[in-house]
Amino acid sequence: MDKQRGLVLVYTGEGKGKTTAALGLALRAVGQGLRVLMIQFLKGSWPSGERRAAEYLPGFRLVAMGLGFTWDGRHTAEEHRAALRRAWQAAREAVLSGDYDLVILDELNNVFHIRDFPVDDIVTVAEVLRTLDQRPPHVHVLITGRGAPAALLERADLVTEMVAVKHPYAAGEPARRGIEY
Amino acid sequence: MDKQRGLVLVYTGEGKGKTTAALGLALRAVGQGLRVLMIQFLKGSWPSGERRAAEYLPGFRLVAMGLGFTWDGRHTAEEHRAALRRAWQAAREAVLSGDYDLVILDELNNVFHIRDFPVDDIVTVAEVLRTLDQRPPHVHVLITGRGAPAALLERADLVTEMVAVKHPYAAGEPARRGIEY
Repeated sequence: MDKQRGLVLVYTGEGKGKTTAALGLALRAVGQGLRVLMIQFLKGSWPSGERRAAEYLPGFRLVAMGLGFTWDGRHTAEEHRAALRRAWQAAREAVLSGDYDLVILDELNNVFHIRDFPVDDIVTVAEVLRTLDQRPPHVHVLITGRGAPAALLERADLVTEMVAVKHPYAAGEPARRGIEY
Repeated sequence: MDKQRGLVLVYTGEGKGKTTAALGLALRAVGQGLRVLMIQFLKGSWPSGERRAAEYLPGFRLVAMGLGFTWDGRHTAEEHRAALRRAWQAAREAVLSGDYDLVILDELNNVFHIRDFPVDDIVTVAEVLRTLDQRPPHVHVLITGRGAPAALLERADLVTEMVAVKHPYAAGEPARRGIEY
């Protein structure tokens, strides 16, 4: 058993806590001297708690490359597609470079469920698996987002499903600063 | 709906990612200027990624007050009981003081499942609920650990269950520095 072999981790499911747990993993990894990159595929560059906190942590690079919800009409399909293309190219390069010990592809799973425009000429599950296969062996990769593809679950070393047992926003509660964002 | 009202959050279940998500929540909250205290009930003060990383984050205090596994014979029942008593007293004080915007009681749920020695003269579920009821209204409290008591699930605003779909250690893989600890 090779203790140095990087793992493929997946956080999926409908519950809260996927991106949050990814941030926690980044925190822990940075504390152990690992170099960590987190690419957010859908979240944009608006201010958030994690963005500000990331600046305190040496060795943690957090890059939000998305444009937000694909269905809210604030950006065209082509703008979203261009952003996703840049995000996947950056992700692929980061994973293959070996420059990071842990690469987090936040909400990549969600990309495969976008129905507002085609994405399969930008990134496919097969392309993600191929990139995982080609990566330097020490690199850990964590992929988050609901609806992880079956082939990725098959390929992963660790899969945790976050199940929403109870959710305050279902009860009409507003999102809390510092808790939700 | 009071946007300032603090929430009670619970991360439970058998899967990986409960403490990790709690660390991520701390990171996000700190980034939004909140004051965060995390008390670890079972984990001890040995070096870990989260301990080192916490030192980088202004406004985040992480205190490991446990002595580790209760069944490994390295400490007596009385030593464990004394440590738990200190941890619960510190937790109760922190929640009631209002000095922190978010208090994380890490692995408190597990305490209610300790069978190696009695704990119900140290802390009970009823005592936890009473403390939640008495806290200043702005205080968010996150309680983690497998086997969250039903009365706590009932009381919580948000509950996420982490389900282990696949786990590398089941396949004989060693724990990874920076990923597991």
